[in-house]
Amino acid sequence: MWLLEAPPPPALQERYGFSPGPDWLDHLQKSCVRIGASGSFVSPHGLILTNHHVGAGQLQKMSTSERNYLKDGFYAPSLKDEIPCPDMEVMVLWSTEDVTKRIEGAVTTGMTPGEDEKARRKAMTEIEDASEKATGLKSQVVKLYRGARYHLYRYRRYTDVRLVMAPEEETAFFGGDTDNFEYPRYDLDICLFRVYENGHPLEVEHYLKVGRDEAHEGDLALVFGHPGRTNRLCTVDHLRFQRDIEIPTNLAWLWRREVQLTTFMARNDENARIADREFFGVQNSRKSRVGYMASLQDPEIARTELDLETKLRAWVAADPARQAAWGDAWDAIASADSTYRGFYWRHQVLDGRVGGGSALFGIARNLVRMAAELPKPSKDRLREYRDTNLESLELDLYSPAPIYPTLETDRIASGLSYAIETLGGDDPLVQAMLAGKAPRARAEELVHGSKLADIAVRKALAAGGTAAIAASGDPMIRLAAAIDPEARALRQRYEDTVDGVQTDAYAKIGAANFALHGEEIYPDATGTLRMAFGPIRGLEEDGHPIPAFTTFAGMYERAAERKGKLGFELPPRWVERKDRLHLDTPLNFIFTADIIGGNSGSPVVDRHGDLIGLIFDGNIESLAWDVAYSDTRGRAVAVDIRGILEALRVMYDAKPLADEIEGR
Amino acid sequence: MWLLEAPPPPALQERYGFSPGPDWLDHLQKSCVRIGASGSFVSPHGLILTNHHVGAGQLQKMSTSERNYLKDGFYAPSLKDEIPCPDMEVMVLWSTEDVTKRIEGAVTTGMTPGEDEKARRKAMTEIEDASEKATGLKSQVVKLYRGARYHLYRYRRYTDVRLVMAPEEETAFFGGDTDNFEYPRYDLDICLFRVYENGHPLEVEHYLKVGRDEAHEGDLALVFGHPGRTNRLCTVDHLRFQRDIEIPTNLAWLWRREVQLTTFMARNDENARIADREFFGVQNSRKSRVGYMASLQDPEIARTELDLETKLRAWVAADPARQAAWGDAWDAIASADSTYRGFYWRHQVLDGRVGGGSALFGIARNLVRMAAELPKPSKDRLREYRDTNLESLELDLYSPAPIYPTLETDRIASGLSYAIETLGGDDPLVQAMLAGKAPRARAEELVHGSKLADIAVRKALAAGGTAAIAASGDPMIRLAAAIDPEARALRQRYEDTVDGVQTDAYAKIGAANFALHGEEIYPDATGTLRMAFGPIRGLEEDGHPIPAFTTFAGMYERAAERKGKLGFELPPRWVERKDRLHLDTPLNFIFTADIIGGNSGSPVVDRHGDLIGLIFDGNIESLAWDVAYSDTRGRAVAVDIRGILEALRVMYDAKPLADEIEGR
Repeated sequence: MWLLEAPPPPALQERYGFSPGPDWLDHLQKSCVRIGASGSFVSPHGLILTNHHVGAGQLQKMSTSERNYLKDGFYAPSLKDEIPCPDMEVMVLWSTEDVTKRIEGAVTTGMTPGEDEKARRKAMTEIEDASEKATGLKSQVVKLYRGARYHLYRYRRYTDVRLVMAPEEETAFFGGDTDNFEYPRYDLDICLFRVYENGHPLEVEHYLKVGRDEAHEGDLALVFGHPGRTNRLCTVDHLRFQRDIEIPTNLAWLWRREVQLTTFMARNDENARIADREFFGVQNSRKSRVGYMASLQDPEIARTELDLETKLRAWVAADPARQAAWGDAWDAIASADSTYRGFYWRHQVLDGRVGGGSALFGIARNLVRMAAELPKPSKDRLREYRDTNLESLELDLYSPAPIYPTLETDRIASGLSYAIETLGGDDPLVQAMLAGKAPRARAEELVHGSKLADIAVRKALAAGGTAAIAASGDPMIRLAAAIDPEARALRQRYEDTVDGVQTDAYAKIGAANFALHGEEIYPDATGTLRMAFGPIRGLEEDGHPIPAFTTFAGMYERAAERKGKLGFELPPRWVERKDRLHLDTPLNFIFTADIIGGNSGSPVVDRHGDLIGLIFDGNIESLAWDVAYSDTRGRAVAVDIRGILEALRVMYDAKPLADEIEGR
Repeated sequence: MWLLEAPPPPALQERYGFSPGPDWLDHLQKSCVRIGASGSFVSPHGLILTNHHVGAGQLQKMSTSERNYLKDGFYAPSLKDEIPCPDMEVMVLWSTEDVTKRIEGAVTTGMTPGEDEKARRKAMTEIEDASEKATGLKSQVVKLYRGARYHLYRYRRYTDVRLVMAPEEETAFFGGDTDNFEYPRYDLDICLFRVYENGHPLEVEHYLKVGRDEAHEGDLALVFGHPGRTNRLCTVDHLRFQRDIEIPTNLAWLWRREVQLTTFMARNDENARIADREFFGVQNSRKSRVGYMASLQDPEIARTELDLETKLRAWVAADPARQAAWGDAWDAIASADSTYRGFYWRHQVLDGRVGGGSALFGIARNLVRMAAELPKPSKDRLREYRDTNLESLELDLYSPAPIYPTLETDRIASGLSYAIETLGGDDPLVQAMLAGKAPRARAEELVHGSKLADIAVRKALAAGGTAAIAASGDPMIRLAAAIDPEARALRQRYEDTVDGVQTDAYAKIGAANFALHGEEIYPDATGTLRMAFGPIRGLEEDGHPIPAFTTFAGMYERAAERKGKLGFELPPRWVERKDRLHLDTPLNFIFTADIIGGNSGSPVVDRHGDLIGLIFDGNIESLAWDVAYSDTRGRAVAVDIRGILEALRVMYDAKPLADEIEGR
């Protein structure tokens, strides 16, 4: 997960004899897009290739009970058929700058860790605001190495994004939850969008071309995308906190919601349709968190982590100057986690899960907080309300995406019950939230009483500021307002006593690491652009070889083998047109690049920079990469560009689109 | 839930003009059987009618990957075709006796609540042992009114039980989890067994005959069965403990196991087969616990409970003698729960969920504890190892039921991971259990290393006592032995500081209740024989009437409406033979009798004592009955005997069986 602004890693030259130059890297950087997760331009006319499961949130929002793009797929044979997305944002990283010194300069001696953190956050906002004013580019400061470095990233931003093509969900997610994070796989997990500017397709200089060479087992493959979060630089005590507190709490919520949504969806077809993406998200997170927890619970991995940490700490302790500068960092992190235990669940509930993922509650909370925050100078606000983030926030807040009362009720009832389950039914704030009713009855009252489904109502409340919020009788606004004082206090406490302290401490550990190892290690994932690489390579399981590539033929075999099972149904066209396909066309492949959630949709390129596929998954063993990377059993899983082009032409009558991608 | 040994409730005469005499009640009592849950004799030749979901545990154990009785059903056209059950026990209540004075007499002044409880338990065992020696009947002391009364129950016990008939799971549980606890329903939830004695069908004097009158809306219907547990006499603080601690913890486990088993079963058909019953049990408990939690979270129900308690406490406080005798009971219960909070999760894990439901771990724990307990006098042992319980224990311990390594591994891995999630990975006992491995690796090692699947090995260990256990290298025995000291200590602590204290206190509240109300209220359910009653009565939902009875025609309509959905598939014979059925035959009906889990399989009779149906469910609203009964929206759900007879004749070619039931 190398930074593109850092020099290319020596391993690339040493192991593969490949040294990408600055132009090569610049071209890749500007061909990539941030689109929730990852994607890339694949034609000069703003065409974007990403995963189906990345685009699916938009498909869900665009669908109705009559027209289900998610389930049935979509193809626009011409530009005029392309459908605008309700609230999609595409960002292209344009330039970067190291601003560590400016951020660190904001911290003065004598500040407490809480004050340190506040000073850093203010400095970040000031730098972003200034950059945005100066360049017109979306600007974001990224905290790297958990606080040892700060880089300013500037993006071009687009919001006129239209749907071009999506396969059926059954094809994109063939094998369902059963085969998710497994290999072999047979998924056409793709979705194509097009970026428009001023009503016309965006003409781009940088885009990826389809590989001139065919990919083979053993070839070097490189990935460019936005890995979301890893925990490799975490201290051993911090990992223990995750193992014993964070992940079990998170998983308990996911297990709970998975069952609740299953019963909600079983009630009728419309429920199944409207909760589809939420359910996928819950299942996908659950499977990934289960895998991560298994790594945290594995004493062998724990021993490796402990060895590394023990060596670094011994090296620090061996020198009084090093010990004085950095020696207290590990205990500071453990102590902050121990502090956090005292209010962890309350923070999780009140600043997080209480709304159960309700759209209306999210809107209400944003309106309540905007009213409080916007009158302040940008740098003094809660970070997400800074000037440079308002456009993104409003895209979301005023989204025309449908809001379904049945699903909203289920979410809020779940969130309110969770508050009782976690904080107890006698808690005064919990009682205030329930207003004397049982969770489900209260949820119905809130959902049916609120007018926030109406975008004009949201805009009026936002325009009216504090006075409008105070005067509003909307029950969802009143609920959000009732929770907000304590939720904000808990967040403040978290930032002051946990996050701030840990940022300080990790900056020290980062410095110690740099001093000992040089800058040879890359920072933990931060949801920003990174490069990873490795050879295309199969696996061995119980003595049987699993080849790196699968084909359409394998997909049909798997469908026959698991006939009638959930997730293994093929759409009618895939049954009817089977004979027209070149069945030996590669469909998916695996390789050893270091990826993680957020890399979904990342282009996979060869050393020419040519597109050979796109990431859509990692295998179960790759989930351990959250803590430590190893290429023994872990693999990244990609859709092969050859399978994509074959499917577009044969299954979807989308020859023009395939031609556009191939530059014909 | 009236005791049969108490006088018939006045309401039966007042509301329905019905006064059952002692002979009528004695006949009903001896026609009923305890069979896990409930059932009844329905022919003079030992034929027992119960629910499919009551018999299904045996069906699961009798099935193989080649012959799946659970899924495909079974019918024995003649006695020689009936199949012996691996470990089924049938008990018939033969006589009862009030032993309250003898139990209370064992408690002497100056004892602590823990000593009180120990003395009572010893007295219970002594009474049981003596009764069994004197009468040859299985004897069990039942704690009623949470400790205000103790009754000795004596049973005839049978273990040669053979399967006669079971429908397909799809028919018995039509509608699956979606329609479970809902109404209207269309389930043929029946299973027929036959009791044998000395190799011949047991000839019984008392059995139920099919109704001479047809049942109609408005008719009085009576239920005889074994409701498992209610919490109506619980104090408000005790209900709060359930709401905030017990039920959320229990549900979190169920949600977790439901998802884990879903993924286990999705892997292949054999996994789906072997985990079928466990999965049903988890889903069924989950749905019922969700309903119960909703009642506990409902402020209206809480207010009603508080009002009742406030009145009783005020009445007690109004008189110094009453206050002195009973006044401290409520605070004692609250204080015991508060004590329990301090070790609740540790107790739940180590004395409960750590094995994840593993059969092998259960066997190991029993062997370890038997070795420690059996050398002591019966009255000094842990209650389940008392002499009078050993036959039942051994039926289970030496059961030939299959043990599946894949499922065992899944259970133990889940239990071990749960121990980490709940107690933390650094806990010394948790580390000892894991023996340096990750939960799944450790589970595999335990399951593949243990020889306890071999019944002879179990018997040898049991025969060898403490020395054999100490010398055993079986890894499952070693695990159980490692956990046992702390598990037993926690159990002791629970019995001394929670259960004992609460039994003392509830005895006081019971006495206060009797003094104020007389013995007009029946005790909380205790898994022993009770009578309930009420009229057959439909419902209204959103202004639409829901008739009390459903028919086969309705079943086919529902199947068509939910075609292709999980749980709504009809077996081939039900599709093929539809035209032969009298489609207007009643299949299920609802009425207002007060039932709860454990009543499954209870016979429903009319005032003649004739069989008109059998309980198989309650609706969602009936789940609130755990705390408080109300006939406004809550209903018991039964299979109609007419539907049973029609299905036996038309669908299963079981005319001889139907004739036997009808006495033809």
